[in-house]
Amino acid sequence: MLPRGRPRALGAAALLLLLLLIGFFLFRGDLDCERCEREASGGGGDPGSLPRSLTPRVLPDERPRPRGAAAFDGDPPADPGGHNGSDCILPRPRPPKCELLQVAIVCAGHNSSRDVITLVKSMLFYRKNPLHLHLVTDAVARNILETLFHTWMVPAVRISFYNADELKPQVSWIPNKHYSGLYGLMKLVLPSALPPDLARVIVLDTDVTFASNIAELWALFAHFSDKQVIGLVENQSDWYLGNLWRNHRPWPALGRGFNTGVILLRLDRLRQAGWEQMWKLTATRELLTLPATSLADQDIFNAIIKEHPWLVQPLPCVWNVQLSDHTLAERCYSEASDLKVIHWNSPKKLRVKNKHVESFRNLYLTFLEYDGNLLRRELFGCPRPPPPGAEQLQRALAQLDEEDACFEFRRQQLTVHRVHITFLPHKPPPPQPHDVTLVAQLSMDRVQMLEALCRHWPGPMSLALYLTDAEAQQFLRFVETSVVLSTRQDVAYHVVYREGPLYPINQLRNVALAQALTPYVFLSDIDFLPAYSLYDYLRASIKELELGSGRKAALVVPAFETLHYRFSFPSSKAELLALLDAGSLHTFRYHEWPRGHAPTDYARWREAQAPYHVQWAADYEPYVVVPRDCPRYDPRFAGFGWNKVAHVVELDAREYELLVLPEAFVIHLPHAPSLDISRFRSSPTYRDCLQALKDEFHQDLSRRYGAAALKYLTALQQPRGPT
Amino acid sequence: MLPRGRPRALGAAALLLLLLLIGFFLFRGDLDCERCEREASGGGGDPGSLPRSLTPRVLPDERPRPRGAAAFDGDPPADPGGHNGSDCILPRPRPPKCELLQVAIVCAGHNSSRDVITLVKSMLFYRKNPLHLHLVTDAVARNILETLFHTWMVPAVRISFYNADELKPQVSWIPNKHYSGLYGLMKLVLPSALPPDLARVIVLDTDVTFASNIAELWALFAHFSDKQVIGLVENQSDWYLGNLWRNHRPWPALGRGFNTGVILLRLDRLRQAGWEQMWKLTATRELLTLPATSLADQDIFNAIIKEHPWLVQPLPCVWNVQLSDHTLAERCYSEASDLKVIHWNSPKKLRVKNKHVESFRNLYLTFLEYDGNLLRRELFGCPRPPPPGAEQLQRALAQLDEEDACFEFRRQQLTVHRVHITFLPHKPPPPQPHDVTLVAQLSMDRVQMLEALCRHWPGPMSLALYLTDAEAQQFLRFVETSVVLSTRQDVAYHVVYREGPLYPINQLRNVALAQALTPYVFLSDIDFLPAYSLYDYLRASIKELELGSGRKAALVVPAFETLHYRFSFPSSKAELLALLDAGSLHTFRYHEWPRGHAPTDYARWREAQAPYHVQWAADYEPYVVVPRDCPRYDPRFAGFGWNKVAHVVELDAREYELLVLPEAFVIHLPHAPSLDISRFRSSPTYRDCLQALKDEFHQDLSRRYGAAALKYLTALQQPRGPT
Repeated sequence: MLPRGRPRALGAAALLLLLLLIGFFLFRGDLDCERCEREASGGGGDPGSLPRSLTPRVLPDERPRPRGAAAFDGDPPADPGGHNGSDCILPRPRPPKCELLQVAIVCAGHNSSRDVITLVKSMLFYRKNPLHLHLVTDAVARNILETLFHTWMVPAVRISFYNADELKPQVSWIPNKHYSGLYGLMKLVLPSALPPDLARVIVLDTDVTFASNIAELWALFAHFSDKQVIGLVENQSDWYLGNLWRNHRPWPALGRGFNTGVILLRLDRLRQAGWEQMWKLTATRELLTLPATSLADQDIFNAIIKEHPWLVQPLPCVWNVQLSDHTLAERCYSEASDLKVIHWNSPKKLRVKNKHVESFRNLYLTFLEYDGNLLRRELFGCPRPPPPGAEQLQRALAQLDEEDACFEFRRQQLTVHRVHITFLPHKPPPPQPHDVTLVAQLSMDRVQMLEALCRHWPGPMSLALYLTDAEAQQFLRFVETSVVLSTRQDVAYHVVYREGPLYPINQLRNVALAQALTPYVFLSDIDFLPAYSLYDYLRASIKELELGSGRKAALVVPAFETLHYRFSFPSSKAELLALLDAGSLHTFRYHEWPRGHAPTDYARWREAQAPYHVQWAADYEPYVVVPRDCPRYDPRFAGFGWNKVAHVVELDAREYELLVLPEAFVIHLPHAPSLDISRFRSSPTYRDCLQALKDEFHQDLSRRYGAAALKYLTALQQPRGPT
Repeated sequence: MLPRGRPRALGAAALLLLLLLIGFFLFRGDLDCERCEREASGGGGDPGSLPRSLTPRVLPDERPRPRGAAAFDGDPPADPGGHNGSDCILPRPRPPKCELLQVAIVCAGHNSSRDVITLVKSMLFYRKNPLHLHLVTDAVARNILETLFHTWMVPAVRISFYNADELKPQVSWIPNKHYSGLYGLMKLVLPSALPPDLARVIVLDTDVTFASNIAELWALFAHFSDKQVIGLVENQSDWYLGNLWRNHRPWPALGRGFNTGVILLRLDRLRQAGWEQMWKLTATRELLTLPATSLADQDIFNAIIKEHPWLVQPLPCVWNVQLSDHTLAERCYSEASDLKVIHWNSPKKLRVKNKHVESFRNLYLTFLEYDGNLLRRELFGCPRPPPPGAEQLQRALAQLDEEDACFEFRRQQLTVHRVHITFLPHKPPPPQPHDVTLVAQLSMDRVQMLEALCRHWPGPMSLALYLTDAEAQQFLRFVETSVVLSTRQDVAYHVVYREGPLYPINQLRNVALAQALTPYVFLSDIDFLPAYSLYDYLRASIKELELGSGRKAALVVPAFETLHYRFSFPSSKAELLALLDAGSLHTFRYHEWPRGHAPTDYARWREAQAPYHVQWAADYEPYVVVPRDCPRYDPRFAGFGWNKVAHVVELDAREYELLVLPEAFVIHLPHAPSLDISRFRSSPTYRDCLQALKDEFHQDLSRRYGAAALKYLTALQQPRGPT
């Protein structure tokens, strides 16, 4: 028989055990497990070593100790939630399926705007949660990104903008030598700049790339102790050890210090703790002995952490694999089974020297060239308000009739194309009352026209390019390696991303037109080269004709064409006329479609010394100079046919004078038919549809202009002999 | 004071607790945790409900019960490792970091070969483990995939091929109505077809797409009980319930049955259990009352499972989200936070009607258009033998001098381009002793030439296309929508994937040449249109000139050009001569580079009635017809310049007669310069390099042909006046 006390004691022990187990499983109910990297890489089957942490949730020491190189190669750190791989088992709560994650990024200028899009693509690719992006931007980046996100229409992504220029005074007093400039420092002011009810945020540099679900990073907030406010990965170089060269004096840091390319911020606690005063005090004090920050905000963050080490929660190294020039990151990534975030923190970026850079670059290129349209994926089971306009769009799309001959056209018209305005650095032209921007659109197969166009037109241009994401990168390289193009900052390139089978010619024209910044625009096409003198001549004509004083006129630039591949461009009207007489030049589409330009009256133009009026006639589609606020192109006309004709009808309906300029001309160069045109020109459905679209256009005209619009319909119904 | 017995009892209880905890953590040491889908989607924070499974490793019931619709919408199944989401906590061992995972796929024909590549891309994108792919293929697929994987050079991927034709007799006796045909049934014979020491394998249909790391799927093997041999996801349609229409008699299955698009097979146990006999018995018996299988192997697998239910381990639904025509998959994916594998198991594939199909399609398109070169990523920390040739390549690349004017050329020459031969369905021409294949290469900007080329050349063609992965899909659509192209099965398109800045013209020519299947080849360029009669005329000439009898000759096809964009093609030599006299046609490059074709002797050709001999001269680059076993092009010449010249030198050095054909001609059509050409023609480095390459070429010639090669060097050094 057992002694009396035992059953009770055993019972108590069993109860305790049961409670513990229940507690454990309850707790584990909203935890997912994450083994640290070393364990995973070690083969997962090393039962001989007892894991360092025996409780499911292990809070790290409050004071992380500065550590040397040993921290990287697996010497178990004192803090199991610490910087890098070790034998620990790290319980990880996963955010609930539909929890909204908050991300802040500082972004300024044209090039950073491109970078941030690649970062966002990588983030969206792996994400499963709704996101709220807080973008601190200058005017340029805001302009670009606002248009981009508005047209991207990614479900379950909210965007807020914050004006970086307003924040400048808070950091501009800090002397800074880092290549990121003033904007790098702005991460310091996020606790006050972001909305006061925002408690947590992930802060990212524009030069990081995700290789995993950002929710896993968000989940690391759960490891913060009550005092911790900043989550950071250890710096993966010896910079802060201060022994890189003689007289190398870095800012103070704990050991190797921390890298601020990826930050978890407890904004609520930072505000409570008087963060603003804290960092300003520290920065001011250090700047008494140090001339400037070398690494922008990172120096200041590190100085604060050195002073208040309990503020930092070190994060696993895989969340910020730093490919800087003298990186020690290999210690991290060769042991990890899974890299989470790559940080291109060398000024050389992708050209950094590293024996493994090729593999990392492949990940970056994946997202650089990734078709962003494919990220318009729903989050199943997360009901969120759809992006603005998405519901109407869905309804309109659902109402389309697949049997309609115009199905493809109507769908193309409804398609919201992602638009990246000023894809490359661009300087707006200085305001001049008679200045004129050349407006045109093109796809990749016409990019080789750009150099010649730049030589012929020395003024501002606004060009819409219809490209895939991969082609946009090809285009970028093309411009960067072209001396002619890379020296021109007055040419604005607006990328409209491809989607659908039809070339959305009028949507493209409208994008380019909307972005023209001069009072006048020359609405041209990419296959035309203007007379060398045209830019100057147009400005002089605009002035002379007093268009600025509210006169509504469209100046017609007569169009010619050569069918010859090798061709010497006439330097004057006299030369042009000689070529015309010799049969080397023709008036544009003289052979196939003379009606398109007949009203220009080429015979009169030969002799003309002064601008002359012409009358609209059916199918007239001249190239014209008009005020920037002219009517937009009708987006229902996509692919090929009637797209310019409809615009000229609209100009006439709004009573624009049509004035032909006697010294102006453009010449069309020959080219093989594009894929887009050859695919649709031969189709009978296409012709049927074009007729239907024309009819609808005329109905709309009658609605808007009443009886005055009748003339367009009548003109259309006249028999078409050769003119 | 405590009673005497207590401390010991408490001590024992504490010890027990400690042991349990240690045991638990040891066990957990090689486990990762996976919550089932419903739990994850429920918000992860439902501490009120006690998880169903309290032990870390829960083995499912041996006999899964047939279940109705309730199984989908979250009714907790009896087997926690079961088909779909439930409240369980499922501990999941992760395979060790570098463990080799085994995957088998059955693949036959041109279209399936394309599909399998998309599947493999998705798998490689997420994988972190070395893979061994076991491909059961017909001759067509083997030919394609062998070349593809050999040139893909993905680290840590091994490929084995198995001859499907040899396996046919084992399944051809089964009457089958499924669209996958006989090949669908071959999954049944994998246990005997795969190597006897292969114990486990994941079997995949070609129409699945991964959205996650395949190691997580592999990890599910650890859940198999001792008797379980097959892991499957429940079928996500009502097919096997047998009530779809009147007289719908499906094969027997447990409840909804299982889908065989994704299978985990314990091959070792299947072999032990006498699998071959088992399935043949079951199939034979069912076929007594059923006329044929409707769903190929899946019917037989289900019949076996119905009979021996303990064989199956049900897998979570996310591992095979089935987008069939009447899918119930939404019950799975709307609750899951993470979809793992998408299965396009409708015969309509991507065009299946499903309100969420757009999102799934985006995932599929991601990999369809993904640049496969980017998957040449190392697995850090997994030392594996590199792909064949990779090490020599690395060494050669490392030895290149970045300062060398030819750096880009040498790198391009070393680049191993991924090659997908016969990208589209292709019927080899029937063997004919004098047949001739037109060989050419092109990139996307010349694709619109293909229709005209097809009209001019009714014979076989072998074309190398230099494309990105996304362009290859554009090209596919172009061919499919072209009546002219889609009806031609004798045109073989070989896709060479783009990499590097130079157009690898001679590598492309060699790919097209190597794939020509007739005894003779006409080595042409894509911008040339042959005389309508050329194909017939060449075959007649080959016969007449008795080239078949070992006579080494190159038949010269004289080349002309038009500078006119609109142009009516001459239907005879007489017409051509008339156009020549009228100045509408010229001999090819008459204006810029007459030396290239001068030796053809156009004056003589005008009058010639019979083939005539001409002598080689410097820079001669005629278009020729030669036996298929002719010398290959020299791959050192990339971009533009000297690429054909060097080949003709080689022909002359090997003593090919040069015979001009009196009735043969081709005409070059004008086109805008391609991006590739305009980028390099203007560069002085390019010219310097071309000279260096020529010198090296002549050195190599001397080495191979001794004194006989001197004439080429001498000829080159002669002054170049107009000829």
